[in-house]
Amino acid sequence: MSVTFAPAPADKAVLESGTGFTPRFDVNGLITAVVVHARDGAVLMLAHMNAEALARTLETGIAHYWSRSRGKLWMKGETSGNVQRVVEMRTDCDQDAVLLRVEVGGDNATCHTGRRSCFYRVVEFDENGARLSETTDGMAAPAET
Amino acid sequence: MSVTFAPAPADKAVLESGTGFTPRFDVNGLITAVVVHARDGAVLMLAHMNAEALARTLETGIAHYWSRSRGKLWMKGETSGNVQRVVEMRTDCDQDAVLLRVEVGGDNATCHTGRRSCFYRVVEFDENGARLSETTDGMAAPAET
Repeated sequence: MSVTFAPAPADKAVLESGTGFTPRFDVNGLITAVVVHARDGAVLMLAHMNAEALARTLETGIAHYWSRSRGKLWMKGETSGNVQRVVEMRTDCDQDAVLLRVEVGGDNATCHTGRRSCFYRVVEFDENGARLSETTDGMAAPAET
Repeated sequence: MSVTFAPAPADKAVLESGTGFTPRFDVNGLITAVVVHARDGAVLMLAHMNAEALARTLETGIAHYWSRSRGKLWMKGETSGNVQRVVEMRTDCDQDAVLLRVEVGGDNATCHTGRRSCFYRVVEFDENGARLSETTDGMAAPAET
């Protein structure tokens, strides 16, 4: 890993308004990444990055994450072919999250279930409580290319 | 809190394909919430919900979160007026995150800095390293209504 990240400044105004990229990794060394499609802005997935995953992503332009379940660095799409090319990366006010705008390779599925997005179910709520129903907006299938 | 949530099923297929909403709160009792604007899908903020915040959000249709920095339940906009009316809530495959599509009250600012979105800075990267620059796409100012 050649890119390193400086610690966050103590001055909140500098953190929030400055030009220094000083990601605030949590106690597990992770930041949260929200991933949207560059073409239509659809929210595809949520994942986590440690410093190495973030550095690799910047260096290669291909999204890398830290798999919490497998405990290892993970290039998204390394087995499925659904590689994410990063068109733009943003960070938020307190720099503990990044937003990736990506183009998706392969068959355009991002979710490991084969769906276009991990967010393929709507939470419905009434007097009987909450339950899920599948969306009908294309999040439940790979988008046509 | 009247709404309660059942524990996640042991069967992964049920968790990922079923109709039961069984949010998987982390060791701190939180799930992550991605918040986008219902009109244009712009990613506005990332926040966290405990069971009470999630229940209040479902019951009232107004977004509530758990403030990790203040250690308290928080109705977004309770002081600023930038209340979020939830148009739709989704969850992801493994139910440890929700996606809220919201309409924003007040002056349409979501970030506590007064900007429309918390994601108002782009991460730029070249051989000199990474730095931030303000976006020019309206995320840095409240949207016109």
